[in-house]
Amino acid sequence: MAEDQTAEEIIAEGDYVLDRDTVAPVLNAVREGDSDALIAAFDPLHPADIADLLEQVDDDTRVRMVQLYGQEFDGDILSELDEGVREEVIAALHPEVLAEAVRDLESDDVVDLIEDLEDEQQNLILDALAVSDRVAVEQSLSYPEESAGRLMQREMVAAPEHWDVGHVIDHMRAHDDLPGQFYHVILVDPRMRPTGYVTLGRIMSAARTTPMRDLVEDSFRTIPVTQDEEDVAYAFNQYHLISAPVVDEDDRLVGVITIDDAMAILDEEHEEDILRLAGVGEGSLSDRVVETVRARLPWLAVNLVTAILASLVIDQFETVIAGFVALAVLMPIVASMGGNAGTQSLTVAVRALATKDLTSSNLWRVIRREVAVGFVNGAIFAIAMGAVGALWFSTPMLGVVLAAAMIINLVIAGLAGVLVPVVLDKLKIDPALASGAFVTTVTDVVGFFAFLGLAAVVLL
Amino acid sequence: MAEDQTAEEIIAEGDYVLDRDTVAPVLNAVREGDSDALIAAFDPLHPADIADLLEQVDDDTRVRMVQLYGQEFDGDILSELDEGVREEVIAALHPEVLAEAVRDLESDDVVDLIEDLEDEQQNLILDALAVSDRVAVEQSLSYPEESAGRLMQREMVAAPEHWDVGHVIDHMRAHDDLPGQFYHVILVDPRMRPTGYVTLGRIMSAARTTPMRDLVEDSFRTIPVTQDEEDVAYAFNQYHLISAPVVDEDDRLVGVITIDDAMAILDEEHEEDILRLAGVGEGSLSDRVVETVRARLPWLAVNLVTAILASLVIDQFETVIAGFVALAVLMPIVASMGGNAGTQSLTVAVRALATKDLTSSNLWRVIRREVAVGFVNGAIFAIAMGAVGALWFSTPMLGVVLAAAMIINLVIAGLAGVLVPVVLDKLKIDPALASGAFVTTVTDVVGFFAFLGLAAVVLL
Repeated sequence: MAEDQTAEEIIAEGDYVLDRDTVAPVLNAVREGDSDALIAAFDPLHPADIADLLEQVDDDTRVRMVQLYGQEFDGDILSELDEGVREEVIAALHPEVLAEAVRDLESDDVVDLIEDLEDEQQNLILDALAVSDRVAVEQSLSYPEESAGRLMQREMVAAPEHWDVGHVIDHMRAHDDLPGQFYHVILVDPRMRPTGYVTLGRIMSAARTTPMRDLVEDSFRTIPVTQDEEDVAYAFNQYHLISAPVVDEDDRLVGVITIDDAMAILDEEHEEDILRLAGVGEGSLSDRVVETVRARLPWLAVNLVTAILASLVIDQFETVIAGFVALAVLMPIVASMGGNAGTQSLTVAVRALATKDLTSSNLWRVIRREVAVGFVNGAIFAIAMGAVGALWFSTPMLGVVLAAAMIINLVIAGLAGVLVPVVLDKLKIDPALASGAFVTTVTDVVGFFAFLGLAAVVLL
Repeated sequence: MAEDQTAEEIIAEGDYVLDRDTVAPVLNAVREGDSDALIAAFDPLHPADIADLLEQVDDDTRVRMVQLYGQEFDGDILSELDEGVREEVIAALHPEVLAEAVRDLESDDVVDLIEDLEDEQQNLILDALAVSDRVAVEQSLSYPEESAGRLMQREMVAAPEHWDVGHVIDHMRAHDDLPGQFYHVILVDPRMRPTGYVTLGRIMSAARTTPMRDLVEDSFRTIPVTQDEEDVAYAFNQYHLISAPVVDEDDRLVGVITIDDAMAILDEEHEEDILRLAGVGEGSLSDRVVETVRARLPWLAVNLVTAILASLVIDQFETVIAGFVALAVLMPIVASMGGNAGTQSLTVAVRALATKDLTSSNLWRVIRREVAVGFVNGAIFAIAMGAVGALWFSTPMLGVVLAAAMIINLVIAGLAGVLVPVVLDKLKIDPALASGAFVTTVTDVVGFFAFLGLAAVVLL
């Protein structure tokens, strides 16, 4: 407890943070094994908040929490959980509670829930579904991972394109199984190909005799069922879509994607980019030490190879360094500045590729700009560091060498910072994943080589 | 042209990328000064795509494009443009075209458009608006920057809470000035305080006599008008909101925020985080060299100070290095591995703070995990590098020193990687902005000090 109090003091509380007032009654209920108190404490919480809380507590507390919550456990909580924790929670749930929990979910939520589970857990959940839902889920799972087909819901509202507003309203009134969330009525031709859509707001404000065709939105776009979900999220954000019909290869309507799902994907893709740029693969805060070590080790191994390469360069100049130890003192500055400048350029390039802003129209201009920026920044720091180097070690030529190496390395950093991600992207490798290692290898090797090589020529 | 062709070969084309077939007719029209051809080429494009194209071409082409497009220029294009380019385009637009363009925008789009403009351009646009719109925009501008008040639209549909479905539908039919996009009817009490909302889908499928009160959604949440837009975006993503009423300090309804705006904010905030983590402040691909230099220089300057600090540490061990040059060869490895491990930890921590997943409930457990991960990874690489160091320079004790320094630095990296962002967050400094510099300072200084210090004790 004393430990938690201190944590409370360190962590800044803010809006929507699970604060002590929320968490304390839950933890008390778990400690006392009081099922009713736990249910009461969870009652005002959104499933997403309950899921966050389950992620934040330790393993034992989590299992006890799930067991005490019992019958009340809601399928939406499972949807909101991180993968690792999700598997644990499913294992801790009583099979009947699990079956009950998933039965209320929409088909796209079930797909999202089970696509990353082990086969055994997947079957457990599929068996719990009604036959029609099960078929829908299995069909969605037949589409490629991370495709629009996995993301879409099959529940939707479509109408023949020749209907009028009154016809549509009567039709909707007659059906009580409308989707939980829908924002458009999709117009389809006789072969079920979407030809437009009308917002509910327009339908409601139009006269009953208005043809639906007269109310269609300009923003209408269909999404191919095999499209990558990252592109789907891009389309929603770029074109301000609220929902979009998904079509198969014959352009026939097979589902609908709504903006909330697209927003969740946008969020995940960003998260992935940030973590990949930092050399952290997948991973969440609730992963255990072993999982975290396993996720980060490969990146550190790549960095080790990079670092050894740089060391091999330094090794070539051992006699130079032995003759002039100041070089050993100053050489990390050149490499470090190059690494930072390279990271700046590559991050801008990786983002621009992700947002489709770096294209053949502006590639050369961007490269020229990065090189120019590298040169200008290099020159500015060359003057500063040249002076420092010259004064610190009372050797003017050392300052000149440092300055020249700085300019060379920052220009190379700008060039590599754009070219490496662009080439990786062309090779269909995620530039966020691999650019960092390549670019810092370049700036380390060039930095040490330029600095020590120039020193060997000029100073000895 | 030859240059562009090569760019075409380097850049991977994909979905939603502005490809040559789209761009070529536009550039041809500009080159030939053919206004009609340009209008025809732009006709099938979404304003967001026209904006992207304006960002990607060079300055001269952009100005000519804007002038040739003339009267057809749409206000939505302005909304979609990056800030820097936006100012240029506004300056290039004929005042009458500009006035016409902004008049069709919703109030929240006008606010978004002008809030970052210079006073002169801001007034130009405000003057173009109808008086009622101008008042609405000025009122929104009176709320703090990056608050819900700036983000919300004032166009909304509200109804007294005692109405039934038929009453609402008749009311909507009678009004032809309904907002362009709306998804809920907000129920308000007599003092205009929102008490719930009903989706349009539910209204349409319910009988006319159903009380609205019976149809309200569980997901209902209000947003305080002063709430930070980052928190607004978080709430939409966390609670799967589609729209949310915005309330003033007396809980009275003042506007509505819709998910598409929240999605755009989420995207911007992520972009900002990624760029800040990489030491790139604001900035876009269309910035000029001078602007880019200015944005990146401060970060490189901070890094320079960091690097000099590390050099000062090395300087303390000049005689040790002079006696044993292998130390100079190997020392960057220790610093580099520490820097990478620290960046991994800090990125995870910065993200977890942004997503509100790092709280007082799990801070200590996360710190313990990061330290443990640092130790395990450190130990693994210690063995590998210890062997390399010992064999490379035929000095077993050098291997031992390298291994020990590696473990120390990776443990410290894990600790600093969590604590630095958490403390910065507590101090209300964006951890994405400053963590990197602090953490790499720590890992550089500790890395060099541990390695060279141990070497001084053990090897000499």
